[in-house]
Amino acid sequence: MSIDLAAPPDSQAAADPPASSRPVRVGIVGAGQQATTHLVPALLQVPHARISAVVDPDQPRRDRLALRVGVPDRLATVAQLLDGGLVDCLIAACPPQAHEQIAAAAIDAGIPVFVEKPPATSTAVLAELAAAAERGGVLTGVGMNFRWAAPVRRLHTLVGDHQPSGPSMIGVRHVASKPTTSMWGLPLWNSFLLAQAIHPIDLLLSLAGAPAVDIQPACRQTGDQVWFGLQTHHANGTIGTVHCGNLAPRFEHRIEVSTTTGITANLTSLADLTVTYPASDALHTGRNQRGTSSHWRPSPLDVGYGRAGFGGELAAFCTAVATGGRFTPSLADLLPTYQIMDQLTPTGGTA
Amino acid sequence: MSIDLAAPPDSQAAADPPASSRPVRVGIVGAGQQATTHLVPALLQVPHARISAVVDPDQPRRDRLALRVGVPDRLATVAQLLDGGLVDCLIAACPPQAHEQIAAAAIDAGIPVFVEKPPATSTAVLAELAAAAERGGVLTGVGMNFRWAAPVRRLHTLVGDHQPSGPSMIGVRHVASKPTTSMWGLPLWNSFLLAQAIHPIDLLLSLAGAPAVDIQPACRQTGDQVWFGLQTHHANGTIGTVHCGNLAPRFEHRIEVSTTTGITANLTSLADLTVTYPASDALHTGRNQRGTSSHWRPSPLDVGYGRAGFGGELAAFCTAVATGGRFTPSLADLLPTYQIMDQLTPTGGTA
Amino acid sequence: MSIDLAAPPDSQAAADPPASSRPVRVGIVGAGQQATTHLVPALLQVPHARISAVVDPDQPRRDRLALRVGVPDRLATVAQLLDGGLVDCLIAACPPQAHEQIAAAAIDAGIPVFVEKPPATSTAVLAELAAAAERGGVLTGVGMNFRWAAPVRRLHTLVGDHQPSGPSMIGVRHVASKPTTSMWGLPLWNSFLLAQAIHPIDLLLSLAGAPAVDIQPACRQTGDQVWFGLQTHHANGTIGTVHCGNLAPRFEHRIEVSTTTGITANLTSLADLTVTYPASDALHTGRNQRGTSSHWRPSPLDVGYGRAGFGGELAAFCTAVATGGRFTPSLADLLPTYQIMDQLTPTGGTA
Amino acid sequence: MSIDLAAPPDSQAAADPPASSRPVRVGIVGAGQQATTHLVPALLQVPHARISAVVDPDQPRRDRLALRVGVPDRLATVAQLLDGGLVDCLIAACPPQAHEQIAAAAIDAGIPVFVEKPPATSTAVLAELAAAAERGGVLTGVGMNFRWAAPVRRLHTLVGDHQPSGPSMIGVRHVASKPTTSMWGLPLWNSFLLAQAIHPIDLLLSLAGAPAVDIQPACRQTGDQVWFGLQTHHANGTIGTVHCGNLAPRFEHRIEVSTTTGITANLTSLADLTVTYPASDALHTGRNQRGTSSHWRPSPLDVGYGRAGFGGELAAFCTAVATGGRFTPSLADLLPTYQIMDQLTPTGGTA
Repeated sequence: MSIDLAAPPDSQAAADPPASSRPVRVGIVGAGQQATTHLVPALLQVPHARISAVVDPDQPRRDRLALRVGVPDRLATVAQLLDGGLVDCLIAACPPQAHEQIAAAAIDAGIPVFVEKPPATSTAVLAELAAAAERGGVLTGVGMNFRWAAPVRRLHTLVGDHQPSGPSMIGVRHVASKPTTSMWGLPLWNSFLLAQAIHPIDLLLSLAGAPAVDIQPACRQTGDQVWFGLQTHHANGTIGTVHCGNLAPRFEHRIEVSTTTGITANLTSLADLTVTYPASDALHTGRNQRGTSSHWRPSPLDVGYGRAGFGGELAAFCTAVATGGRFTPSLADLLPTYQIMDQLTPTGGTA
Repeated sequence: MSIDLAAPPDSQAAADPPASSRPVRVGIVGAGQQATTHLVPALLQVPHARISAVVDPDQPRRDRLALRVGVPDRLATVAQLLDGGLVDCLIAACPPQAHEQIAAAAIDAGIPVFVEKPPATSTAVLAELAAAAERGGVLTGVGMNFRWAAPVRRLHTLVGDHQPSGPSMIGVRHVASKPTTSMWGLPLWNSFLLAQAIHPIDLLLSLAGAPAVDIQPACRQTGDQVWFGLQTHHANGTIGTVHCGNLAPRFEHRIEVSTTTGITANLTSLADLTVTYPASDALHTGRNQRGTSSHWRPSPLDVGYGRAGFGGELAAFCTAVATGGRFTPSLADLLPTYQIMDQLTPTGGTA
Repeated sequence: MSIDLAAPPDSQAAADPPASSRPVRVGIVGAGQQATTHLVPALLQVPHARISAVVDPDQPRRDRLALRVGVPDRLATVAQLLDGGLVDCLIAACPPQAHEQIAAAAIDAGIPVFVEKPPATSTAVLAELAAAAERGGVLTGVGMNFRWAAPVRRLHTLVGDHQPSGPSMIGVRHVASKPTTSMWGLPLWNSFLLAQAIHPIDLLLSLAGAPAVDIQPACRQTGDQVWFGLQTHHANGTIGTVHCGNLAPRFEHRIEVSTTTGITANLTSLADLTVTYPASDALHTGRNQRGTSSHWRPSPLDVGYGRAGFGGELAAFCTAVATGGRFTPSLADLLPTYQIMDQLTPTGGTA
Repeated sequence: MSIDLAAPPDSQAAADPPASSRPVRVGIVGAGQQATTHLVPALLQVPHARISAVVDPDQPRRDRLALRVGVPDRLATVAQLLDGGLVDCLIAACPPQAHEQIAAAAIDAGIPVFVEKPPATSTAVLAELAAAAERGGVLTGVGMNFRWAAPVRRLHTLVGDHQPSGPSMIGVRHVASKPTTSMWGLPLWNSFLLAQAIHPIDLLLSLAGAPAVDIQPACRQTGDQVWFGLQTHHANGTIGTVHCGNLAPRFEHRIEVSTTTGITANLTSLADLTVTYPASDALHTGRNQRGTSSHWRPSPLDVGYGRAGFGGELAAFCTAVATGGRFTPSLADLLPTYQIMDQLTPTGGTA
């Protein structure tokens, strides 16, 4: 067996530009921090995308962003944008309540729509939107950038390629320093779930290779400190774990995978991937060790938005818009993640 | 707040030699691999210990070990040793069934006894032995070297010193490449529990700072592959997780701790300890980051038996023998670990 | 002593936007790979900069770049741009021969100019340009992004703040996989110097804190393999070393610094900075170790162009344009680096 | 190409016990710290060695060590030991002046002798001893443990196996926190050379694969701070560098190698070995990366004296004694290292 950590991840094809020469016209909805520092610069690197309009009710804000990227069409509302026929799709980075409305309007108008996470404030609303998109045959996408992070794609390829029977154990640790106050008018616990916990749960489900058939949560809240453990059992025998909280001085992220084919993988900080696999040739194996480790880290000059996933997800979404293809995760793909979050209810910090 | 990772761990005092000048006379029981490569060389580094006798029914084996360390008294049975008054304590490295008999005999004779893990084949026998030791006031010890590993002691000190309310989340990952066959005449699953799982469970309980009030296991066996996830809830609010299996090409070990005082610690391979804690001075904090990380790793020339814990546990046990003090973990201290193992029963690899 | 690796580097002030509200109008010269993937996206993140024109003799190429960032003014020559009064400065990413002409024209026109490395093909031409800029009082800049890489700025602050007498030893390792063929019509050795070696030599000189008073080179070329060692002696006692070559399968980068105040720093891959400094309190020092290590690495979600230096250098250059301030490195600042390169002449791979 | 970092290093054969059943009888000379904590415990792990006598003029010290390892013969002088015919070889850990006398006496008596570093106080004396050993056909050895450290052996195998033309660049960084005062009655600079600098210089020469044909030193002393850079040119085109000093809060060690066959290797702290080599199959190579990295680190439970080299060198020396074979490094093998040290003379810290 040989594992090439330098090979392009399997998602690359999906992100490749389509043959068609006309670029996808994108309407940016929401000219705030996330759009300005992540989505728009990442989109500017997508060769087959063109930002055609910026929508934000705050005029100075939308003008500032539009000016910087030379976009002439600046609008106050999504309705104006959808009426104008100016764009092929919407990409929105707003509060979740706005995402609900934007997605509903776009689906209603038959326009593909990508919303940053969290896509909705509740499972019920999310399910409604997903059903509407399904009925209308409208392409949707959610910005779960961890799924599309370059080293996670490599991990995914490894797990998928080298094990017919699936992983055996997956651990995701996602401990942040926020939120410690309410966001989006929601209670702290819900803010924490929608801002942070959504990521590791979604990542675990996407790596497990089979639906969760049982979950065991353990949730705590003490003042403004929140944390939980989550153990999942999957239909293919995989056991998953999430540790998540707002207690760390700095954001810490780690994924650990063991497979039934004897591969283990550890990805620290989306920047340090070590994969260990059984030695191919027993003759060369030392007396005290078995297995070989391969190691990947980004180039010293790694720049841009690919490593964190923003580049890959936007390129793939625009490709799907251009080709009429699929995109993952869609609104519907987030439902299992929301259903697990519904079962997470904190008790006090001491039992 | 300042955290000095270079400070001596709190266990140092316990391991310091007592003032008394006469060394503790140790009888080694079992002259096999574990005694030869770990316990005996570690003991030779303990200034207040002296190996006085070697017991093994296999004469060439006991002679070989005794000759190497210049021990004149070589005996075939523990009974001969206990009758002779030659030693102040026994240190045994044998199969668990033999540990049961050796511990029983030593306790009966009132002689302190230290047995390598696993100390017994069942909770019932372990409880009987612990009760007998309690009744007789006999010092006992179990060789759970991970507890005494130098970087784990540092971790323990950190967790203990800096958080009145205990840790919030603890994860222990202990994935080995063995056993894949029966050991000690026991089924594979039980062999795996007693040879491997005993370590991370014991380590988790010793770090949690409070008893487990609930446990959630998820266990799998497929052919000779075994693995489990374990989630524990502790009386102080701590949530613990163990991932353990025999699937890795090489032994992998990691401990991750988050505390409610904002400290996180990661210990990889007992060799790489990173502790992150809130910045003491907000003025010096960068815009995009909070917290400071300290890093510890062994010296390039680290040698001997301290890092892996064998040196520390044996020094501390001999000190307890000399001074009439306590030693942790005793036989009784292992009961909670055994009680958890009793609840681990595998289902097939696919649910 | 306390070292805060999370503190903003000292260069931050220089890069902060000036109070003036009118953005700096930038003319991009050269619409190739480097401009498209590094300089333009990095510039789009600089709040006080606006790309106002794109110049490239290749019309499809300049149209493609201009279209993507919404720039109306697209020109074939620098002369047209300088005549038009459309921009406040030029930022050029072209072959070095073109940099020479662009810089000369801009200096002649009194327009600030920033050129990517290498700024010129020879020391003589570089000296002429620097002298002309000096005479004309024209701001110049060279794109030596390593100097501006976020972790290098932290390193610089550490070295500058904590040691009156300067560093004692600095090692820079910069081993790439290219070039292995001629670039820019120059021989391989010269291509290698101007494309790769210029970086570690410039970095060493910028960290040394004093001019080099003696240099000892050792250069090798065997077929398309080139490498050299370089040892420098500095006026403040610092000893520097560069290892550079085109032999590595992947680009590897490391900086190691020791100072006379007992600080050591290691920066690997511009991503992993460990600083060790003497323990502040001897009482807390362990028996076998002295010193405390702090550790910095980018956030898992680090994105954009700051870590690799492209963001910082362009922001600072635009600030200097707006405020009439200084920028480092100017064309003149590169002269010592070129003078060292002039002394690097390869001998065959075997002496 | 496939590189198996888990394979046993090529030195293993040399260290394997000989077929002869009688163990090698070792006389330990010097019962101080180095013998007690490193050499004696390492020797106890060598199956074909037996400590037969302990020599030290300080009676309590020699009794303490002898008692611990059960050695009956305790002597005050080497002369007594050599007269007695009690041992097959001497292993000495004393000040260098004593090493000179012990080696001379052993060579004169025709008894194999291994001395810890430094073996002598001057090149002249070392050359005399080496010549005497050559004349007498007496086996000698010097305790340069870094050469025999397990990960250095792996590195050596890699460099030797995979490159007919030798390495291209080797860097050794060895920065310690001592000595800061005179040792063995010698000036600080000489103490520093014999206690610290001898290691990285010897390591560089042993890895270079060809003699040094030119050396370029740069040495500094300011008060009790000493450091130097050293650049070496080797007959096979290799360029070597040493950075060495007493300025670090903790001991730091790193070896970096590039070869003309496109392999790079980095060994940090004798504990973390990363080897990168060209990808075997261009089809699997990613667009932005070439090469594959393999990673080795010690097991979490690595114990004993093998990693730091003490175990390997003593096992190999005892094998050579038993079989009449060779051992490296002999006294003569250290001469090139001493000749380089003779050219290291400090100037003041500021030029």
